[in-house]
Amino acid sequence: MDASFPLPVFTGDAPLYQQLYRHIAGAIQSGALFPGEKLPSKRRMCALAGVSMSTVETAYSLLAAEGYVLAKPRSGYVCAHLLPPIPAAPPPVDVPPPPEPSRWAYDCSTSAVDTSAFPFSSWARITKEAVYENPGLLQRGHPQGDQPLRAALAGLLAQYRGVRCSPEQVVVGAGADYLLSLLLQLLPEQRAVALEDPGYPAAYAAAALHGRQALPIPVDGEGMNPDALECSGAGLAYVTPSHQFPLGVTMPAGRRSRLLHWAASQPGRFLIEDDYDSEFRYASRPIPALQGLDRAGRVVYMGTFSRSIAPAIRVAYMILPPPLLERYRRTFSHGACTVSRFEQESLRRFIAQGLYGRHLRRTGNLYRKKCALFTGALSAIPGASVSGAGAGLHFLLTLPRYSEGELVERAACQSIRVHPLSRYCHAVPPIPSTVVLGFAGLSEEELGQAAERLGRAWK
Amino acid sequence: MDASFPLPVFTGDAPLYQQLYRHIAGAIQSGALFPGEKLPSKRRMCALAGVSMSTVETAYSLLAAEGYVLAKPRSGYVCAHLLPPIPAAPPPVDVPPPPEPSRWAYDCSTSAVDTSAFPFSSWARITKEAVYENPGLLQRGHPQGDQPLRAALAGLLAQYRGVRCSPEQVVVGAGADYLLSLLLQLLPEQRAVALEDPGYPAAYAAAALHGRQALPIPVDGEGMNPDALECSGAGLAYVTPSHQFPLGVTMPAGRRSRLLHWAASQPGRFLIEDDYDSEFRYASRPIPALQGLDRAGRVVYMGTFSRSIAPAIRVAYMILPPPLLERYRRTFSHGACTVSRFEQESLRRFIAQGLYGRHLRRTGNLYRKKCALFTGALSAIPGASVSGAGAGLHFLLTLPRYSEGELVERAACQSIRVHPLSRYCHAVPPIPSTVVLGFAGLSEEELGQAAERLGRAWK
Repeated sequence: MDASFPLPVFTGDAPLYQQLYRHIAGAIQSGALFPGEKLPSKRRMCALAGVSMSTVETAYSLLAAEGYVLAKPRSGYVCAHLLPPIPAAPPPVDVPPPPEPSRWAYDCSTSAVDTSAFPFSSWARITKEAVYENPGLLQRGHPQGDQPLRAALAGLLAQYRGVRCSPEQVVVGAGADYLLSLLLQLLPEQRAVALEDPGYPAAYAAAALHGRQALPIPVDGEGMNPDALECSGAGLAYVTPSHQFPLGVTMPAGRRSRLLHWAASQPGRFLIEDDYDSEFRYASRPIPALQGLDRAGRVVYMGTFSRSIAPAIRVAYMILPPPLLERYRRTFSHGACTVSRFEQESLRRFIAQGLYGRHLRRTGNLYRKKCALFTGALSAIPGASVSGAGAGLHFLLTLPRYSEGELVERAACQSIRVHPLSRYCHAVPPIPSTVVLGFAGLSEEELGQAAERLGRAWK
Repeated sequence: MDASFPLPVFTGDAPLYQQLYRHIAGAIQSGALFPGEKLPSKRRMCALAGVSMSTVETAYSLLAAEGYVLAKPRSGYVCAHLLPPIPAAPPPVDVPPPPEPSRWAYDCSTSAVDTSAFPFSSWARITKEAVYENPGLLQRGHPQGDQPLRAALAGLLAQYRGVRCSPEQVVVGAGADYLLSLLLQLLPEQRAVALEDPGYPAAYAAAALHGRQALPIPVDGEGMNPDALECSGAGLAYVTPSHQFPLGVTMPAGRRSRLLHWAASQPGRFLIEDDYDSEFRYASRPIPALQGLDRAGRVVYMGTFSRSIAPAIRVAYMILPPPLLERYRRTFSHGACTVSRFEQESLRRFIAQGLYGRHLRRTGNLYRKKCALFTGALSAIPGASVSGAGAGLHFLLTLPRYSEGELVERAACQSIRVHPLSRYCHAVPPIPSTVVLGFAGLSEEELGQAAERLGRAWK
């Protein structure tokens, strides 16, 4: 046996025990050593391979631990019975390359924010303090997010948005999409979801992912149409009342009251109020959230810091009405909150030290100026009209002399990315000749240049 | 009309325009003002309420923006038609109190880790640098996680776990539970999931939440039983080969090969390999991951930093085989990664600066000592036997003279929390008289004290 035993050729790269182990394991896998075949004794192997006893012992015990060999009393190690190696699959299809970085000179899509006003040094200091002063935060925290942050959020939402809740109702999570997904898991009886049409693509995506039927409900000048909602038969509706995405409509009080009536009029109906960019309002003061008007416990309020601070800050929150909170606790009490506790504590300090309020005022003024500058310059294009610019970080532009496709293409020829409105439309035909323009990610100078190019593109 | 107009009583608390606005909105909502009724002219309202013109103008425009009143040309503002207020629901059921903090003197549950070795000052410094030196990280990052972190993970997993992947296959997310949930959304055709029995409760919970049938497959001395798996008809199996949860079994090479054959033998079959605590191994060297042996692209590898660093660090990762990666990119390319980019960059620096490796070695030694100490002390209890202690942060203890329930209760009388094995069992009867003991969260001193108390409890 010794003579035929396939000996390893040692190279300089890895520890000897590892090379010996790999060599023998490979021989067993390839069939060069047969099931039941005995390995040389440890002492013999030392001599054969020219290595120390401890090298052989480590390699043999590793082989035994992994089940390549079995230790038999009084007869040493024998090779185990392994199934033949699996034939390698045809070379796997190429891994698709990552999405290419923006090739646009001016990207007017809707998800960017202005980070020039971000208080880097304060945030860096706060993050450091949050780690250094809170060793307890390393252990598992509350599944809904830590109580001090939830209390800060409840206070903030009461002050800025008229939301009425206790910190117990707040659920913190890593992004609004994640929370929406959680919420759908919490409402398995809702087989269909009424969604705004045109509306937020991620809401449609979430419905599809969770196997729910998406029921597109037309948006009119006041938001989601309540008659169409009633007819749809849905028990769950997702709305953006502060600044409808993408039309920019603000839902007036009468319509709000209609939707709350819809929700309250049958057991088990719920409204999801996504207040995604309510922090920025230029034409009038912010309008209190639907949640604050709800007397029946039928509104789930959602918000995020992705726009008010930055997309990189993956902190969103939802306010669950008591019946859903009970369900949440039954269903998710075993889980951990998806936001790092250090980041939760950093955000709490950012709010408590007044830095968040200051940041909101600063960016609010910045966005107000940018919005005025960009809409002003674009309104000068003959025939162009702007709408939905009273709040948020995007607006619509309509220019009847071109089709939607022409508007997008002519902008692209100037290396400017604008989104066609039809991108957000489902059953409802889009407003003709209309595109969606985000302005937050470009500087004032860039906005001026982009407007000039668009003037040429759409002249 | 003027005479009957309900005038506000101003108090000192809020701006006057807000009080006026709230007062009129309230009057419209309560029905004190009727639909179609005219508001006093602005000038008249100044006189009636004794406030300035700008106060009245702000209040009226707010009422108009919210739709409480309509501006009619040449006739001023008239009250809108609102639905009657919704009757308040019966007072909502009390919000349940948060789960009570641990009331145990010694908590031997399985999710805690030792945070005494955490390098607070290095982590605090790194976090600060990660924020300060990377302003670009505020913008939206790659949905799978940023490339530099994915490259660092691919390198780490190749070195420590024998995982073979490109950074393109890595998906970073906020916790293993979140990634498992994502994966199930990616595999809608898998109506059933084979799960280890006994097994990880969160895997059962994830299956239930996503409407999949959980098929409990018995675990024997080598891990999930492959014959039972074949018979179950499942196309997807979730396994913990390095250190089975909760039995602590390490899957030998022969069984690994059987499972890989099972996966490769029919199209569309996949294995989920959860390597949740593979970093800590005391009895032999770590065994390479199943993923590294897979030639057919059927293994999804998952891991987490919850145990190797701390539960508060919400960073987990999975390695998708190419066909699933393509699916992932089609399905989730619109989303954002659920981990803050600052935290991603902090972790990358922690790895790149060699601090993670040092932390693993330090905690590995710590846990090895703790495990030896605790199992040693408990083995001294007459009749007690310990198993599954060769790796990870928990083990089993069997003591035939008491029932499982008695073991748990007698420990509780000493204010020690231990989990019954039956907690993790589904179709399979639990090993009699057996409990699961975690040791990571207690100090060596506490472990000694806990073992002493358990000795009294179980004598």
